[in-house]
Amino acid sequence: MRLSRYFLPILKENPREAEIVSHRLMLRAGMVRQQAAGSFSWLPLGKRVLDKVCRIIREEQDRAGALEIMMPTIQSAELWRESGRYDAYGPEMLRLRDRHERDMLYGPTNEEMVTDIFRSYVRSYKDLPLNLYHIQWKFRDEVRPRFGVMRSREFLMKDAYSFDLDFEGAKAAYNRMFVSYLRTFTRMGLQAIPMRADTGPIGGDLSHEFIILAETGESQVYCHRDFLSLPVPGADTNFGDDAEIGGIVKAWTTPYAATDEMHEEDVWSGIGENERLSARGIEVGHIFHFGQKYSKPMGASVTGPDGKEHFVSMGSYGIGPSRLIAAIIEAFHDDNGIIWPESVAPFDMALINMKPGDAECDRVCEEFYAQLSAAGKDVLYDDTDQRAGGKFATADLIGLPWQVIVGPRGVAAGEVEIKNRRTGERETMAIAAAAQKLGAS
Amino acid sequence: MRLSRYFLPILKENPREAEIVSHRLMLRAGMVRQQAAGSFSWLPLGKRVLDKVCRIIREEQDRAGALEIMMPTIQSAELWRESGRYDAYGPEMLRLRDRHERDMLYGPTNEEMVTDIFRSYVRSYKDLPLNLYHIQWKFRDEVRPRFGVMRSREFLMKDAYSFDLDFEGAKAAYNRMFVSYLRTFTRMGLQAIPMRADTGPIGGDLSHEFIILAETGESQVYCHRDFLSLPVPGADTNFGDDAEIGGIVKAWTTPYAATDEMHEEDVWSGIGENERLSARGIEVGHIFHFGQKYSKPMGASVTGPDGKEHFVSMGSYGIGPSRLIAAIIEAFHDDNGIIWPESVAPFDMALINMKPGDAECDRVCEEFYAQLSAAGKDVLYDDTDQRAGGKFATADLIGLPWQVIVGPRGVAAGEVEIKNRRTGERETMAIAAAAQKLGAS
Repeated sequence: MRLSRYFLPILKENPREAEIVSHRLMLRAGMVRQQAAGSFSWLPLGKRVLDKVCRIIREEQDRAGALEIMMPTIQSAELWRESGRYDAYGPEMLRLRDRHERDMLYGPTNEEMVTDIFRSYVRSYKDLPLNLYHIQWKFRDEVRPRFGVMRSREFLMKDAYSFDLDFEGAKAAYNRMFVSYLRTFTRMGLQAIPMRADTGPIGGDLSHEFIILAETGESQVYCHRDFLSLPVPGADTNFGDDAEIGGIVKAWTTPYAATDEMHEEDVWSGIGENERLSARGIEVGHIFHFGQKYSKPMGASVTGPDGKEHFVSMGSYGIGPSRLIAAIIEAFHDDNGIIWPESVAPFDMALINMKPGDAECDRVCEEFYAQLSAAGKDVLYDDTDQRAGGKFATADLIGLPWQVIVGPRGVAAGEVEIKNRRTGERETMAIAAAAQKLGAS
Repeated sequence: MRLSRYFLPILKENPREAEIVSHRLMLRAGMVRQQAAGSFSWLPLGKRVLDKVCRIIREEQDRAGALEIMMPTIQSAELWRESGRYDAYGPEMLRLRDRHERDMLYGPTNEEMVTDIFRSYVRSYKDLPLNLYHIQWKFRDEVRPRFGVMRSREFLMKDAYSFDLDFEGAKAAYNRMFVSYLRTFTRMGLQAIPMRADTGPIGGDLSHEFIILAETGESQVYCHRDFLSLPVPGADTNFGDDAEIGGIVKAWTTPYAATDEMHEEDVWSGIGENERLSARGIEVGHIFHFGQKYSKPMGASVTGPDGKEHFVSMGSYGIGPSRLIAAIIEAFHDDNGIIWPESVAPFDMALINMKPGDAECDRVCEEFYAQLSAAGKDVLYDDTDQRAGGKFATADLIGLPWQVIVGPRGVAAGEVEIKNRRTGERETMAIAAAAQKLGAS
């Protein structure tokens, strides 16, 4: 993408309304624009990150056997009356009426609707296990939305729902999502630690939050240092093997880990001081087992191998991709801006032409751009006539993993400079070597 | 994907509520489920088609220079009061209030919001042309939603918005989208004919509908037969060349073409009888130029090369991917079910194991499945123990372009049968040859 044809509205000043660093940097880097309280447009740079994050989530959901669907945002109140949540949910639910005066709502979550889909079609235990997920906008009418997309009203959520014959099956489904989440966050460069959680308004009796550590995190968390060295399950993990998956979950739930609400001081004090890690954390995922909480009132049952009807045992599994992006920035930034992990960077590199109009600089840039693009790399080519200082500041702010700097003096020597955004290391090298290093095929 | 682990709730009976063939087939093939009047969940098979359709739309929008963003579904009424449309829009707009009693609405379209984004950042003609699009759910509270996703209340829409300094620039932007739409629909196997259109509530003075021909189309259309042989612009079309793009638009707007509302009987009767094509059509895209209709009341202006402020000249460009899928089915089906064009088929082929449990059938299927999947093909492997007749009926109904039939007799001879869903042609061939023909690398 040529920057001259891109829409990247960088802000020079720190926006006053932004209280946390991710909000500030997302506004400054032109990733999002606030449209109303707790409501954001994702501008081109932000949309690219959102897509990359969603792709990783999707790949790991699919790998774990979940199937993607898409449920509508607007739901009928009728469904929520069946589960009893229509009256119970409170003012965070955005309620509305259509032109025929029917009560509707903007879905804050989808347990009822997916249970309705299930009961409409599935009759036999032979069709289980089943796990359906979607990535769809949700609305929760927070009384005081803030922190940008970290706590907004309209937000994207990946929510998966598992259906099994009995608790044993549901536990296996829960474990698959648990392991899927470990892989998902690791692929984004994050250190995520599962912590036993309160189940809240979703209900249920088994739940984990996935917390990433970030100095600017919203809450206090406590865990054993062992987490930092636990091996993360690889791409070859066999999600069809309940024992293997269960073993991974066991390893990741054995050391102590707790959020503030669930913290047990007496257990904590029994852990050696050098092994305790007390830090700030941000919740990026939440999984629940809630058994028959919805299947029973809504009549979602299957015939079991015993010929009898069984209400299915369910779980739900959420990740907020929009919130997750803010969390990634909280974990990876410096004074100059964002430092994207490669897997979710909006572009793989910035190609900085120091002197557009100079025939040699232009030629080298065009060739580099064509070569890397052909190799499948996403290159943001800064072909604008901004001053060099401004170009460097922009590249640092938007945080692409690499900067390739093409100036007249280097080009005359057949060289370019490459800079690693994370380490700050700069290296001058032959043009072909730079192309090679950055992925030219 | 193994069918035994997939969620494909086929209906054996024709659902009574479905009045048109696409609605009937989408329900029967387990693509969608109705959740409320005019509101649908997309089940796994439907979601795959939706993704493929959106990917083509996205690629062609990007090729034409449009930039993808994502605006929220819920909008502030304030914005719509600025343009004057909040009161003008009528009961199709879903209005609501948040917990602070602020008037909000579920966006039926996004002219106001995107104009707000524009005016917040863009100051100079040097930042033009600009075209921003998103693919987002919309809500229009139709008084009588029907025909499935063809006329639903909550629907997906790709809406692009162009911003230019003057009419000339806006016309060039309009032309780029015009050509982009020709390519988009052609890639989906559709014959789309642009027809001059009424501008309706969006307003403006230049507008085309893109109509595809289908026997079961909703409206009567009239056009010159020349359209059927006009060359569609290729992937090498230079969207940076206004003259080239303008020439294509000229060629595609010269022969007579009109919907019922815009039909001029006297012009029509002047066309030779053999050259007239009177047919049924379905609208799948709509583009508008509306100049300063929103930029003026909302104060979206840039400094021109003359140093003066100019309200920008705008256009909007819509395609409804969910509706488009129904239109594709209206155009491509037979008595047995859907016949997907390859580019939007949910899977490339059905692999039908006629005798699961038979060691040789299983082995051949597994190898075939692994080989084609590794080559990047989407294979739906029917490994269920359903009877052969049911497997064939399902494969025909869901309309994958190819069926690969693996039975014990063929396998003993080293052969499989492949069937082309569109032509019905069957061919028995060596296993390796079949794999080769269907894309094994």
